[in-house]
Amino acid sequence: MATGHTDPQRRERIIAATLDLIADEGVAGVSHRKIATRAGVPLGSMTYHFSGIDELLQEAFQRFTDDFVDMWAGHLAGATDRDQVVEAIADLVHALSEGPQRDLVLTQELYTLAARRPAYRRFTHEWMRRSRVHLEKHFDPSTARQVDALIEGLTLHRALAREPHGRDVTLEAITRITTTRPSAATD
Amino acid sequence: MATGHTDPQRRERIIAATLDLIADEGVAGVSHRKIATRAGVPLGSMTYHFSGIDELLQEAFQRFTDDFVDMWAGHLAGATDRDQVVEAIADLVHALSEGPQRDLVLTQELYTLAARRPAYRRFTHEWMRRSRVHLEKHFDPSTARQVDALIEGLTLHRALAREPHGRDVTLEAITRITTTRPSAATD
Repeated sequence: MATGHTDPQRRERIIAATLDLIADEGVAGVSHRKIATRAGVPLGSMTYHFSGIDELLQEAFQRFTDDFVDMWAGHLAGATDRDQVVEAIADLVHALSEGPQRDLVLTQELYTLAARRPAYRRFTHEWMRRSRVHLEKHFDPSTARQVDALIEGLTLHRALAREPHGRDVTLEAITRITTTRPSAATD
Repeated sequence: MATGHTDPQRRERIIAATLDLIADEGVAGVSHRKIATRAGVPLGSMTYHFSGIDELLQEAFQRFTDDFVDMWAGHLAGATDRDQVVEAIADLVHALSEGPQRDLVLTQELYTLAARRPAYRRFTHEWMRRSRVHLEKHFDPSTARQVDALIEGLTLHRALAREPHGRDVTLEAITRITTTRPSAATD
């Protein structure tokens, strides 16, 4: 049997346990002891694999945002024409806002950490940049930024409302924000 | 000198101290003892004025969102024509995203609480509803919802980015989302 120090899955288990703990108790509840218990690893292996709580949080949020961007890319990958892209973005907003509370909680935990500690804006900044890469396959860079912000706002407002808006509102908003008109046509 | 029990300012001081503590240490760091110390009141007066931590959090976030809606209303009050409204909304996005980190942190703390505990969606729901009341002075209800979500997304993305987008992007996004076109004019 491999020793803990050479078990490549141990580090992965610790990262997964850290995300589970943040989802359940928040960043403020994270401790080496609680993570070790959840991951089923000896307390001593925590400091072997990670320099401290900050590295643990960083690795955990890196993993979370990596998985999120993969999901996002998969969601948009099938769309080819403009109508399909608009529908795919609406699907994304509704899936995110009606989906597992875990993702909503983890997102808000990361945002709160980044609001409080600017060093963590490295993760939010990169997350946004990588999301826009996939939107820029369909839109110019300025429109991609606008769509990305709109997805964020629509998702958050649906998730935190007691009577979330319907798909008609989502579709209309995406259609409007992606409509670029020649200046001669402005009203 | 008034006794604590009849001092009307004591309850206010406790609510203000609770918001300060949430801003500094997060919802997870809130305790009767810490708030009493910050507010300069005896520990015993905490349970006289509030039934527990939940009531304290609720009163604190009620105060925070009340003040926020007042600020928001004041921001939009001076705008009369369409161009002024678009400029006022852009001012709001940039003021919020470049403003005191305290407001950003408190907003994210409330969202995290509401993500984790649906009972707190009463506050986020009401906050959105009251914000839309002011937008509905200028836009139809569906557009007001879309604008409200866009303000949220643009503000959050500017606040959490290392290279926030410029005012031109903000103005373009608001102009697009508030442009309602007759169906004959679709491209």
